Amino acid sequence: MWDGGLAQAGGPPGLTAWPPRPNVTAMESVRVFAPATVGNVICGFDVLGLALEQPGDEVIARRSGGVGVIITAIRGDEGRLPLDPGRNVAGVAASAVVARCGLASEGIDLEIRKGLPLAAGMGGSAASAVAAAVATDALLGSKLDKPTLLACALEGERVAAGEGHPDNAAPCLYGGIALSRPGNPIDVIQLPVPSSLAVALVHPPHETLTERGRAVLPERVALHTAVAQMADVSAFVSALHAGDMDLLGRTLVDRLAEPVRRFLVPGFEAVREAALAVNALGAGISGSGPSMFALCRTLEDARSAASAMAGAFAAAGLEGADCHVSTVASEGAQILADPEHVP
Amino acid sequence: MWDGGLAQAGGPPGLTAWPPRPNVTAMESVRVFAPATVGNVICGFDVLGLALEQPGDEVIARRSGGVGVIITAIRGDEGRLPLDPGRNVAGVAASAVVARCGLASEGIDLEIRKGLPLAAGMGGSAASAVAAAVATDALLGSKLDKPTLLACALEGERVAAGEGHPDNAAPCLYGGIALSRPGNPIDVIQLPVPSSLAVALVHPPHETLTERGRAVLPERVALHTAVAQMADVSAFVSALHAGDMDLLGRTLVDRLAEPVRRFLVPGFEAVREAALAVNALGAGISGSGPSMFALCRTLEDARSAASAMAGAFAAAGLEGADCHVSTVASEGAQILADPEHVP
Repeated sequence: MWDGGLAQAGGPPGLTAWPPRPNVTAMESVRVFAPATVGNVICGFDVLGLALEQPGDEVIARRSGGVGVIITAIRGDEGRLPLDPGRNVAGVAASAVVARCGLASEGIDLEIRKGLPLAAGMGGSAASAVAAAVATDALLGSKLDKPTLLACALEGERVAAGEGHPDNAAPCLYGGIALSRPGNPIDVIQLPVPSSLAVALVHPPHETLTERGRAVLPERVALHTAVAQMADVSAFVSALHAGDMDLLGRTLVDRLAEPVRRFLVPGFEAVREAALAVNALGAGISGSGPSMFALCRTLEDARSAASAMAGAFAAAGLEGADCHVSTVASEGAQILADPEHVP
Repeated sequence: MWDGGLAQAGGPPGLTAWPPRPNVTAMESVRVFAPATVGNVICGFDVLGLALEQPGDEVIARRSGGVGVIITAIRGDEGRLPLDPGRNVAGVAASAVVARCGLASEGIDLEIRKGLPLAAGMGGSAASAVAAAVATDALLGSKLDKPTLLACALEGERVAAGEGHPDNAAPCLYGGIALSRPGNPIDVIQLPVPSSLAVALVHPPHETLTERGRAVLPERVALHTAVAQMADVSAFVSALHAGDMDLLGRTLVDRLAEPVRRFLVPGFEAVREAALAVNALGAGISGSGPSMFALCRTLEDARSAASAMAGAFAAAGLEGADCHVSTVASEGAQILADPEHVP
């Protein structure tokens, strides 16, 4: 087994630091992990997102003798995702990287290992797109900067969602809590994260297509609604900078998506109340759902919240929700040292 | 002449520190200065405001032998403001304070000294309301906290504007750059201000009634417009915390009020461009105009911006604009040591 290039170049076993070494040119394959993300974070519709430590997707990119990007295998999707690289978020993201590197004739094989469920609101398509973009770029000599990698990942996401919103892809690539503002390239601002802040992410056995989650949104909102939401998302950012957890909790209100998306999530109100009853700072829909999440003061609180939320989902008829408890990940997508080792 | 109570109690001459001493009960009169404010600060429509050091309004509150609030004199308004305390922002704010102190039969005389022009977009009605609220409360023994004083000032502002928006009154009372989020009482968050940040505020000889400035606003906005504005106001807050002036400049975009209010300000585009041409971080309409302001990296830059903006107003037919150049005031409304001295 090839031992990974990065490890040969002196890197530690396990995860290596971002950015990948730019002068590693002999790589034959690169394996990248990209984490689950919570889009919107309640008060920041389409603007905020945060990364978890785990779970996530992996993409292995290998040099091939052929031309262009080919998807050789997808694991963990039960055969539901397209192998056609032009219709697969990872394939499109990888092709965008190849094109931006000016290496259109390069042959790249992609293997996708879905650790994230489909249509769950956990940022699965962003994770595959980001992992593919980072892996392909590393394989080609790490020529692209993060804003360009984000643009490539968003090209991929457009295949899945019709639109490329950065609220999942930005934290997936950068880690932490990311604020994306309009710009070309998109202006990603990494916000400070109080060290104890923890996330409970609960995925019930139910699916919400991203298109459906977007179709229910209003095209226009009342000016006073927009103003109130501007106040809360700004105050959330201030609370993160100041480490003011009480203020943070007060800002976790969504007047834009939640009023319509709550009807796509069975048990929404009970799940939210269950989290708040055990001391969560706030709770709401992750992305377009049906997963729900809670922000908590500590990991211990997050464990309690996850358990309470899963119980509330069960009471609403959705037994067996998956619970993920994590601090906010300080790193986003990461190159793994051993590209061929499957744990 | 009575020397002011606060000075008797050991305070320094000149301005005294906020909060006023709560146990000074022998006061016969209190004089309060409240500064000009810039509402909206471009990216934070109805949410953000900032206070200048100067100019401002003053209100003197005196105990009277009568019952209730009476306005004895208004200086500097050319006879345009109502003496009827039920129709005057200062009168209503003072009455609200008297009522909240549970002293409904107390007799208070108010004298108002307008340092701020009317219908200028410089927060003049907020300044009179805040000064009256603070002066009346101090006269009655400083019983009220700041959130309550703000609520009283907003009751006053409703008389002038029909609605009580906190974007002027909050920074006028608290100082600095204030973010107001929905709540009862309103949640005022004081944002950190980079020490060199300076403001050029230019008031052309033209008036815009606040009602007119509000009447032109749309009732609804596109969701994607609201989202973009949420991103910019949040990023502005992050830039203040991080002291990132480049990011601050990028966030100074208004998609909500400026597209319609610009037509109420003769020369808007030229004035804005004139400020940007001399290195301003951003420039826009102050409140509902017609005053315009620029945020600048230094006082020196702000002086250049003010001069350039006044020149552009002149070229647009508005000769003789008043220029105010100031750092952002760290203090808001302040009790002056000598209530009877008129400088």
